Amino acid sequence: MQINTMETIETLGTVAFAISGTFAAMQRRLDPFGVLIIAFVTSIGGGTVRDLLVGDTPVAWMRDVNYCLLILLTSLAAIFFKTHIKKFKVTLFLFDSLGLGLFTMLGIQKGITFGLSPGICVALGTITGCFGGVIRDTLLNTIPVIFHKEIYATACILGGVLFFLLKYFKVTDGASTIIVIAFIFILRVIVVRFKLALPKFGY
Amino acid sequence: MQINTMETIETLGTVAFAISGTFAAMQRRLDPFGVLIIAFVTSIGGGTVRDLLVGDTPVAWMRDVNYCLLILLTSLAAIFFKTHIKKFKVTLFLFDSLGLGLFTMLGIQKGITFGLSPGICVALGTITGCFGGVIRDTLLNTIPVIFHKEIYATACILGGVLFFLLKYFKVTDGASTIIVIAFIFILRVIVVRFKLALPKFGY
Amino acid sequence: MQINTMETIETLGTVAFAISGTFAAMQRRLDPFGVLIIAFVTSIGGGTVRDLLVGDTPVAWMRDVNYCLLILLTSLAAIFFKTHIKKFKVTLFLFDSLGLGLFTMLGIQKGITFGLSPGICVALGTITGCFGGVIRDTLLNTIPVIFHKEIYATACILGGVLFFLLKYFKVTDGASTIIVIAFIFILRVIVVRFKLALPKFGY
Repeated sequence: MQINTMETIETLGTVAFAISGTFAAMQRRLDPFGVLIIAFVTSIGGGTVRDLLVGDTPVAWMRDVNYCLLILLTSLAAIFFKTHIKKFKVTLFLFDSLGLGLFTMLGIQKGITFGLSPGICVALGTITGCFGGVIRDTLLNTIPVIFHKEIYATACILGGVLFFLLKYFKVTDGASTIIVIAFIFILRVIVVRFKLALPKFGY
Repeated sequence: MQINTMETIETLGTVAFAISGTFAAMQRRLDPFGVLIIAFVTSIGGGTVRDLLVGDTPVAWMRDVNYCLLILLTSLAAIFFKTHIKKFKVTLFLFDSLGLGLFTMLGIQKGITFGLSPGICVALGTITGCFGGVIRDTLLNTIPVIFHKEIYATACILGGVLFFLLKYFKVTDGASTIIVIAFIFILRVIVVRFKLALPKFGY
Repeated sequence: MQINTMETIETLGTVAFAISGTFAAMQRRLDPFGVLIIAFVTSIGGGTVRDLLVGDTPVAWMRDVNYCLLILLTSLAAIFFKTHIKKFKVTLFLFDSLGLGLFTMLGIQKGITFGLSPGICVALGTITGCFGGVIRDTLLNTIPVIFHKEIYATACILGGVLFFLLKYFKVTDGASTIIVIAFIFILRVIVVRFKLALPKFGY
């Protein structure tokens, strides 16, 4: 049952990332193909980098064509219904944060499966959650937002640390997973709602 | 004999991509090393990403030093004879389109070898054909041309779909390969000749 | 004892690259997380690309959490003591050049371990030495310095060629390693001291 829950949220997260990628690309006035590509890399970038780093190839999206179809359909829907979806900017943000939490957990779980140490698992979870956005922004020729906007990857790191704290206190994996996803989600909402950001540096 | 034909066209495609990379880098006034690197990534980028995604490592160019030598010599020739080659801009474009077709087919074939589903094979073919240019443009700090110029990756996708349609109708692999390469090549020529492009989007 | 020497220099090189990444990111006024990420990719980028290309996964930094801790502590130290360290710009440059030499050698050694041909080993060494900086600059949205500044990757290539020349003349691997690191280091110092650069190209 827990697996079904995670699959459901993964689907929602994939959908949310595909929509966010579609909108980012349309803002830059790319052609339809470019929009689809950006939607695709935003959705699968994190998982792809995760699978490459641990050597779990062919990477996940190549083994399941349904995953690609979901992104394609989501992106096409976002293109055609853009005026309608734009009104749900808040809904989108919520889905994006939910996806961030889940993808972080998926990365941590894969790290554990490959026998990596907790610190590395947290890094892998963070990469899984954030890298789609990093590749998207790099391709769109802007400094990736996670480097100069409100707390984003930091939420993944804190969530990952929380997961291993809960593990240390013998909380079950299933419960920890739900708690961490909720934690990352709520932290993101609080941060964006109150415009919190890490202080910047300069010479 | 068909394998020899493909090897010949692969060589031509590699040469064409190396020349296009060399010229793109020289336009940005890079030093000779930078020019060689850009020529190299333009030629091998697509195949490298393909091999990484399916887990076929060490990647292709690391297993055959002749491939690297070919790129090096082509790039050096393009640097020294640039005024002469510039007159053959059309020839270059034709080779580039031929290379695009062949590299797309090589990607599709590798996908089939690794037992991936047709949709994924088409994606892999498209990545193999286009990614060299994407990496080149990202390193040169411009939005990759495939995202805002005339139909490029779309030609690979249509070519890939055509390949599996031909397969469905029991056309032999050899014939399909030739047809698809010709299709991508001719489509590119028509698109560029008549300045066709996918419509753009914006909010 | 030679292994201990290399481990020592590797540690120093990692430290130097982490500091250079930290400073580059602070110059762009990133938030602390962004600074840490840039410090991290500058330190591990080259080795990660190397391990991905040859298929030695999980990549090196995922197998040794101490490596990550070293980068984290170095970057934090650089952030807090930045005014102090800035006076040691020359020291930094020297460590950076030393790191370049060592990482190049580590790449070459891994290439030999995987049975690749000498030319490919030199390329792998160059990638190991330079790619951290390339990824850093790409993420910071500038043309990677190795493409338009003084001789950098060229030093790695010349060092790599020197290594195989020494091997050809039966010099022991241990001696060759020290000589090549010293060669790359000294070449960098001479180049920067006398502002040497490869000539640029343009149409």
